Amino acid sequence: MKQLQVTIEGSGRHIHLTKECLETLFGAGYELEPKKFLSQPGEFASSSKVDVVGPKGTIKGVSILGPCRPFTQVELSFTDARILGINPPIRQSGNIAGSAPVTLIGPAGKAELKEGAIVAKRHLHISKADADEYGIKNEEIVQIKVGGERGLIFDEVVARVSDKFETVVHLDYDEINAAALFGDNAVGTVLR
Amino acid sequence: MKQLQVTIEGSGRHIHLTKECLETLFGAGYELEPKKFLSQPGEFASSSKVDVVGPKGTIKGVSILGPCRPFTQVELSFTDARILGINPPIRQSGNIAGSAPVTLIGPAGKAELKEGAIVAKRHLHISKADADEYGIKNEEIVQIKVGGERGLIFDEVVARVSDKFETVVHLDYDEINAAALFGDNAVGTVLR
Repeated sequence: MKQLQVTIEGSGRHIHLTKECLETLFGAGYELEPKKFLSQPGEFASSSKVDVVGPKGTIKGVSILGPCRPFTQVELSFTDARILGINPPIRQSGNIAGSAPVTLIGPAGKAELKEGAIVAKRHLHISKADADEYGIKNEEIVQIKVGGERGLIFDEVVARVSDKFETVVHLDYDEINAAALFGDNAVGTVLR
Repeated sequence: MKQLQVTIEGSGRHIHLTKECLETLFGAGYELEPKKFLSQPGEFASSSKVDVVGPKGTIKGVSILGPCRPFTQVELSFTDARILGINPPIRQSGNIAGSAPVTLIGPAGKAELKEGAIVAKRHLHISKADADEYGIKNEEIVQIKVGGERGLIFDEVVARVSDKFETVVHLDYDEINAAALFGDNAVGTVLR
């Protein structure tokens, strides 16, 4: 059977903001400027950054991704969470109900979020064309095998199918480090 | 077939020192005092700490394990390595030839190590009795499966058999975080 090879990208800590929260942090009428476009069409890293504060520590200069979303969400690794002293749940993006509280500090104001901090669940963005070809369904849990000195098989990888997606696996840097997936050519194989 | 269940322990950054290096850092005649005994018989965390310095940063207060060894070795995670700005290889303990240089700073002096910083290769300490019962040989590569929200199968786990060992898997905190193996009851299953 044909096996799907996928690019693996590390996803560093980052923040999605509502328009309202963006203006609280940066001032009325503020707009995010794209600094670098990401693998998912339309998504970009902006040049705007804020500090993230928890009960035990602060992480300075965390990147804000654009465009604005209908929810404010802070995606962290467990390494980050330990620095901040918070206990975020493992969630898919957008599923923030009851997630960890955290404070954002921008140049024009601060936002004390009652919830919003998560550790992203491992996920495979997959194009509709690839999903059809390999018979992978939206929300299906797949395994991704990687080789090398720290080879492993990631289980619990959720597939997210869209005709707007490039096919790519997103892991956080704890996961990237655990598998030693350094460099621009990290790839994995989808097992099923 | 009977499967071996093993306890999984996180192994934080730590340092092993030669007696000579210990005296360079802390002064002539200095002795390490056991603060906490570890799962491997005779090994202990001491109350002595030094700073580890690399070209890009410093990690303060890194624990020294005892007793002294015939080599000086600094075991780090890739998260730590990035803070320091060094590029350590993945190695078994004791195999430090050509590993990364790093500087240690103690209260009485400093040691500029030409080599010695490694990222520990995942390993399974296994008692002779368990190894015999499950047919696992010294230096054999095994897989360890863990469940939960970040379930995965660690490949490239080297088995180290000794009648002096407790049976336990040692991972660094990048690996612990990647698999969300928190709490005192983390276990895995050896696959073969």
